[in-house]
Amino acid sequence: MIAVPEIRIMDTTLRDGMHAMAHQFTPEQMAQVAAALDEAGVDVIEVTHGDGLAGSSFQYGFAAATDEEYLEAVAPVLKKAKLAALILPGIGTCRDMRMAVQAGVKVFRIATHVTEADISEEHMGLAKEMGAEVVGFLMMSHTVGKEKIAEQAKLMESYGADVVYMVDSAGAMIPPEVTEKIGYLKEVLNIPVGFHAHNNLGLAVGNTLAAVAAGATAVDGTLRGLGAGAGNTSTEVLVAALKKAGYQVGVDLYKIMDAATVLEPMMRRPQVIDNASIILGYAGVYSSFLLHTYRAAERFGLDPRDILMELGRRKVVGGQEDYIVDVAYEMSRNKSRAV
Amino acid sequence: MIAVPEIRIMDTTLRDGMHAMAHQFTPEQMAQVAAALDEAGVDVIEVTHGDGLAGSSFQYGFAAATDEEYLEAVAPVLKKAKLAALILPGIGTCRDMRMAVQAGVKVFRIATHVTEADISEEHMGLAKEMGAEVVGFLMMSHTVGKEKIAEQAKLMESYGADVVYMVDSAGAMIPPEVTEKIGYLKEVLNIPVGFHAHNNLGLAVGNTLAAVAAGATAVDGTLRGLGAGAGNTSTEVLVAALKKAGYQVGVDLYKIMDAATVLEPMMRRPQVIDNASIILGYAGVYSSFLLHTYRAAERFGLDPRDILMELGRRKVVGGQEDYIVDVAYEMSRNKSRAV
Repeated sequence: MIAVPEIRIMDTTLRDGMHAMAHQFTPEQMAQVAAALDEAGVDVIEVTHGDGLAGSSFQYGFAAATDEEYLEAVAPVLKKAKLAALILPGIGTCRDMRMAVQAGVKVFRIATHVTEADISEEHMGLAKEMGAEVVGFLMMSHTVGKEKIAEQAKLMESYGADVVYMVDSAGAMIPPEVTEKIGYLKEVLNIPVGFHAHNNLGLAVGNTLAAVAAGATAVDGTLRGLGAGAGNTSTEVLVAALKKAGYQVGVDLYKIMDAATVLEPMMRRPQVIDNASIILGYAGVYSSFLLHTYRAAERFGLDPRDILMELGRRKVVGGQEDYIVDVAYEMSRNKSRAV
Repeated sequence: MIAVPEIRIMDTTLRDGMHAMAHQFTPEQMAQVAAALDEAGVDVIEVTHGDGLAGSSFQYGFAAATDEEYLEAVAPVLKKAKLAALILPGIGTCRDMRMAVQAGVKVFRIATHVTEADISEEHMGLAKEMGAEVVGFLMMSHTVGKEKIAEQAKLMESYGADVVYMVDSAGAMIPPEVTEKIGYLKEVLNIPVGFHAHNNLGLAVGNTLAAVAAGATAVDGTLRGLGAGAGNTSTEVLVAALKKAGYQVGVDLYKIMDAATVLEPMMRRPQVIDNASIILGYAGVYSSFLLHTYRAAERFGLDPRDILMELGRRKVVGGQEDYIVDVAYEMSRNKSRAV
């Protein structure tokens, strides 16, 4: 008989879900949701601005409270779950990490673009030094092949990461791709592998099951799938699917559904897959490009879907929002030439 | 190089989606949605009461119009797509089928419980006699093993079915199960295999991709996933996912998203996965049991989730709604004994 591994559930309702709330959860709301997640047996609860520590800014949107206020509201209600904070090196600093540990953070999730793991070395070192668990987070992993992801994951492992996540930031992956990439990561890494999905192609749960079948033992979700655009893997649906598939999950199904019931009245809109989200997933581009794309489409008389598809082909990454206007301009010139 | 098969898309927004509309689409609304589906290149468009021909009744709920009115409203707007009608032998009769052909139906989808294919023989014979295409529909296929499904599918094949669908009526399947069962059907049948999913465990798209990978060449969807409870596979999301996975699909992605935009303002609620739907999928029971279960739970002081789980263990089937009270009574007696 093969031993079935226990799957760790990390819930990021109170971090990635913040995007769908325009970062306006109150600390009290966060404490309520976190208490319900803790009660259900979720292993790790991630809390910060949607863009991680120090994300609250003119550029990324101001949150309703500071990260410190959020963390200090949540930490005391946790009986079993570990408190986590996301940090994107370049946005959050080592100073923010020290504050977070003071506020009760036990796990740092340190995120970089899938080709830029090297910028996580200092932050990972500090996290380890402070005794925290370190989760590496390789974003936009659909844009490169398995060897590149593995190379970058190995870097994170060498910096002290305890787990490395493959992150499908744009909800652009399909199950065979997840199977191949996670399987390869399992082969080359000596640490556990995680997977974080988005639901743009309706595959958040399907891809996560594929990841677990391929050897991932840590997976992310948000209650009701709360997240930008099409949202994330729904934690409560995922728990049901994992149990149905026979995996060991230390989360109680009824109680995680109860936690979703706590969240529900706080949501600003139901989490559905609209047309824009489908195109983002199909093209493989970040949801933060959407507004810029609509503006450029109007300015140059183009179909925004065509611009998103072109951005996907060019594999634009976060931070390249200005480039959208250049692409749209070029497309409009080619179009008028063709006419 | 392996030839990639073309995947047929059958859309059932205007039949299975009727459940989520309390069967209240108007014929004009149906015509609008059907025109958009036709324009997008959908191969088959199914139209009737949610429970098929003659479903409009006190027992299943009265529709806003007769099947004849719906079919006659839709038939003239179709340029390429074939008009289909569902029939459940025992509800719909041969007389209804003759009316449907008069009204323009070219495809009959003839549905039975997965162990009762034998009741479809007469209806399939008549459909063939009238020159229609016949799609067999084996409902609640999660309740039995692959050999039983295959045996029943062979029966339908012997009655003249042109395609047989495996139907995951309760949204209770997981991808490895779909892979195994569809793969086996492909082995033993000489006709194409189809798959119809529900989204209770967030796996409608994931399971449908698994079915196609295992050899299914006909798949169902509804715009925006419109359907009872957690709803169906979203047609527009499925088209994106199939194309992304490299399959040939004769449906235009932009135009099927446009069709979803036509449907959207007609919807009564956003299609999301609520807690009741999760338990229905996890337990593997029909959504029509829900109301009866809530009533029984209240009467006997039980958690409705526990009743649904017990009904799933006992593999109750459609029509056994009265049995719910017996099960709840028995559970309440055992409970009081335990105390």
